[in-house]
Amino acid sequence: MPTATVILPAAGRGRRFGSKNAPDRQVPGTPRADVPAPEAATKAFAVMAGRPILAHTLDRFARLESVVEIIVPVPAGAVAWARKTFGDSVGAGLPAVAGRPLVFVAGGEQRTESVARALEASDGGTELVVIHDAVRPLIRPAVIEEAMRVAVEVGAAVVGRPVDHTIKSVRDGPCPAGSRWDRRVAETIPRKDLWLAQTPQVFRRDILTRAYEHRSAVVGKITDDAQLVEAIGEAVVMVEGDAANVKITTAEDLRLCEALLAAGWPFENRG
Amino acid sequence: MPTATVILPAAGRGRRFGSKNAPDRQVPGTPRADVPAPEAATKAFAVMAGRPILAHTLDRFARLESVVEIIVPVPAGAVAWARKTFGDSVGAGLPAVAGRPLVFVAGGEQRTESVARALEASDGGTELVVIHDAVRPLIRPAVIEEAMRVAVEVGAAVVGRPVDHTIKSVRDGPCPAGSRWDRRVAETIPRKDLWLAQTPQVFRRDILTRAYEHRSAVVGKITDDAQLVEAIGEAVVMVEGDAANVKITTAEDLRLCEALLAAGWPFENRG
Repeated sequence: MPTATVILPAAGRGRRFGSKNAPDRQVPGTPRADVPAPEAATKAFAVMAGRPILAHTLDRFARLESVVEIIVPVPAGAVAWARKTFGDSVGAGLPAVAGRPLVFVAGGEQRTESVARALEASDGGTELVVIHDAVRPLIRPAVIEEAMRVAVEVGAAVVGRPVDHTIKSVRDGPCPAGSRWDRRVAETIPRKDLWLAQTPQVFRRDILTRAYEHRSAVVGKITDDAQLVEAIGEAVVMVEGDAANVKITTAEDLRLCEALLAAGWPFENRG
Repeated sequence: MPTATVILPAAGRGRRFGSKNAPDRQVPGTPRADVPAPEAATKAFAVMAGRPILAHTLDRFARLESVVEIIVPVPAGAVAWARKTFGDSVGAGLPAVAGRPLVFVAGGEQRTESVARALEASDGGTELVVIHDAVRPLIRPAVIEEAMRVAVEVGAAVVGRPVDHTIKSVRDGPCPAGSRWDRRVAETIPRKDLWLAQTPQVFRRDILTRAYEHRSAVVGKITDDAQLVEAIGEAVVMVEGDAANVKITTAEDLRLCEALLAAGWPFENRG
């Protein structure tokens, strides 16, 4: 397995997370006397099953021997606090990977800006770059490794799931006219060949670097990193992951992940 | 609130459910000496938290006073068994709705055929028809009622969720040529205005009846009932439901629902 830099974007402000949820979800011990509380909260610091979500996610990647460094973009006001709280290396208690650098950098307003800053902070010597939402703590290491294998061969791999829902497009405006209902269905989209993209998304470093150099030329909203690679015409391949690889964006998502952990996820003793 | 007929399609054979899961998921007590075991299993009979999935789903609808009858299409070989097992009325212990008919009918090969047969078995006197996957046991009654309110005003309402994933279309064929990887990403689909359709889907009876009369004219795969209503040009409105309204299609989905129930779903004491 080739060497890999892992980037875990965690600079999102969690606007949808709900302030009512904050009191019992703060990282225990914050604010501490010696470390100012972060000015800007991020969902990745919320507590899940007694530990910050980010700590769970770090554990998943710390098990992979090919991981050389982990870089975490967080809100600028939270960098010092994160360094004190999480330390500067990963894999404590795991001899194979203990001591590999854990680097916190100030993220940007946009996710792509956060990833670009993380790439600048990387040591540059790894063959692969693995980008994974810090708030997807239930990723299985075996799925990460499968995506890495595909990326080595193809250049870019995205973990996702085939769409098994009916998907509909809606149009704006009240329906019927004058009513309080909107979101009228415009059409049912054929779902054959559609996939939901999750993370990790894994790239050969040279391809990702080139894609990021051209990112200002991409028109429209950029919702994942693979989109930038698609835009420069490089191949991207989907790798099937788990439905349980939840992205925590609401308090309900957090409860759901806690329920899965309490029930013994990953089930069936899978990696 | 107007009167409603509820149809819970449960004729799906559960091919993706996994035979390894069967032994400990069979309905307790089957086969019984006096009732032959169903020739054709359906996912809705699998056991979740000690009871058949269908029993959980029936409970959710039995709480609604507007429900006049519940019709459940099951595999033809399972009709007699289902009648013996679940009885012929709903709402035992719930005085407001006790004694309303629970009717099992033989479903067809296609879902639309199952719904058509259920419509034929209906008493015809209700204003609304509510169609809900029997294998979505975590539906909240408050969401069902919201969809019913919208259907009364607009004619058709579909419970769903806004798409918050990146969606990609893939093309067939190995990538790179000769490799074992396929599913190359063709494009990233703009997700603005896209919704995932779940159930319940609620219709004014006259509109649904007309849509079903025209169903043979619909080209392509039919994946939900609202599609037939869209095809005759009637308005369909999306109603936002819960991410936890899981459709159980795999053993993992079943474990996930059990985990949610064990964690106290519905959270926050919502309906």
